[in-house]
Amino acid sequence: MQSGQPGDEARIQNVTRVRTLKLTLAYDGTDYAGWQRQQNALAVQQVVEEAFAHFTGGEPPTVSGAGRTDSGVHALGQVASVNVEFEHSASAVMRALNVRLPEAIRVIGIVDAAPGFHARFHAKGKSYRYRIARTPVQSPFDRLYSWHVPWALDLDAMRAAAAEIVGRHDFASFQASGTLITATVRHLERLELIESGGELHVVAEGEGFLRHMVRIIAGTLVEVGSGQRDARSMPEVIAARNRDAAGKTAPPHGLALVAVKYSHLVAVE
Amino acid sequence: MQSGQPGDEARIQNVTRVRTLKLTLAYDGTDYAGWQRQQNALAVQQVVEEAFAHFTGGEPPTVSGAGRTDSGVHALGQVASVNVEFEHSASAVMRALNVRLPEAIRVIGIVDAAPGFHARFHAKGKSYRYRIARTPVQSPFDRLYSWHVPWALDLDAMRAAAAEIVGRHDFASFQASGTLITATVRHLERLELIESGGELHVVAEGEGFLRHMVRIIAGTLVEVGSGQRDARSMPEVIAARNRDAAGKTAPPHGLALVAVKYSHLVAVE
Repeated sequence: MQSGQPGDEARIQNVTRVRTLKLTLAYDGTDYAGWQRQQNALAVQQVVEEAFAHFTGGEPPTVSGAGRTDSGVHALGQVASVNVEFEHSASAVMRALNVRLPEAIRVIGIVDAAPGFHARFHAKGKSYRYRIARTPVQSPFDRLYSWHVPWALDLDAMRAAAAEIVGRHDFASFQASGTLITATVRHLERLELIESGGELHVVAEGEGFLRHMVRIIAGTLVEVGSGQRDARSMPEVIAARNRDAAGKTAPPHGLALVAVKYSHLVAVE
Repeated sequence: MQSGQPGDEARIQNVTRVRTLKLTLAYDGTDYAGWQRQQNALAVQQVVEEAFAHFTGGEPPTVSGAGRTDSGVHALGQVASVNVEFEHSASAVMRALNVRLPEAIRVIGIVDAAPGFHARFHAKGKSYRYRIARTPVQSPFDRLYSWHVPWALDLDAMRAAAAEIVGRHDFASFQASGTLITATVRHLERLELIESGGELHVVAEGEGFLRHMVRIIAGTLVEVGSGQRDARSMPEVIAARNRDAAGKTAPPHGLALVAVKYSHLVAVE
């Protein structure tokens, strides 16, 4: 087909109308079945997609999130991408979405990304924070956002264990049982324990995470801090490549997806 | 009747067994119909009284709160008193109550008070904090605990108005309409606007408060800050002794009862 024909022009026009938006979202995961759209439960993704349907008319577009946060897990900086054809400014879309979304889900930023940008496939890293409340009585205002561990914890032992877990390993022992993924090597770039007021925060950063990985790490570290496990046993736990070798999965409500990292070449702001 | 008779001794023994406990409570008021026991809705008082019934057997005792927080209003340091006859230590009672109470209601302190101590009648002062979220987008984690006011506020004007409101006045204009109380003079000892992160806190302290008083003050100050009212009109608003003269009642969820003050002679710890 020769260039310059009417059909081409229309197609080019149509192509130029497709935009990819990069959304940053914060949400209280308490009342949602996680990020990912579910058949029988309300997920954050569905709520955001339905808010978008206002602009697109017709069917809601697919809004792809970088991290599939579990039911009850929160987000301070989830990132999602969506392809749209309307011409409203990013800031107008953000305001309109926040009017339609429940207050538990907020769009805290929207920018135009490079066409084809995909929040999940192009993510270069994620950071999570797991909050552990250490006061004898947990504040009622933190009950949905931190795990209450009122007993004594040996932080030195927990830090020694974290130093064994950080790095590139096969994390099969730290993956939810029943998961079909067999490529379980991940590079955990950072694993730190930070004291903040009456809380202990487990901060984890890496390129990618397995299902429940941060929660299993948090649960295992608490078992080490409680004297139920030796910090020096971590290499064995990793080598076992068996979910049963690690500690219990910490409850979801202590966890938040803090941020998602991209290369500047992909997400043009 | 002569002293030394068996009946007297039994009565004296019985009297010495009655103790008055002073409880300090924190609660998330979101899901409760305020502090005070209601006929058709669940109030914090009822929940605490029923937790106590575990110790007393039989009927729940009356737990008297210092402040009748409204539906949706929170408490960081509500104080309550209760007369009991059991001999468990205060710390054992606190632990047991927290096991039975929902996580939204926490006993953060219990001490033995002077016999006859009454949390409400003996209160010498209360402090409240009203949180106003000023960021363009409110954090989903603050949505139940602060009033979102994203538009511009003139803080100088609000502070000038607060300076007119603080002090001893007839606060009839700042009392919920329909209230039967006619003795409406109160001494508002402190009324300050404090910036904290992206929030503005209205801090109010005084011997006693009328129904909705802090919320009507917060609503009126926001109207001043928004340019809808002149800061210099506050003396007229007070002089009117009419609810219609003041601003709208700010929503309940921004308010928290922070602390209750007692003279040391009453609350022996």
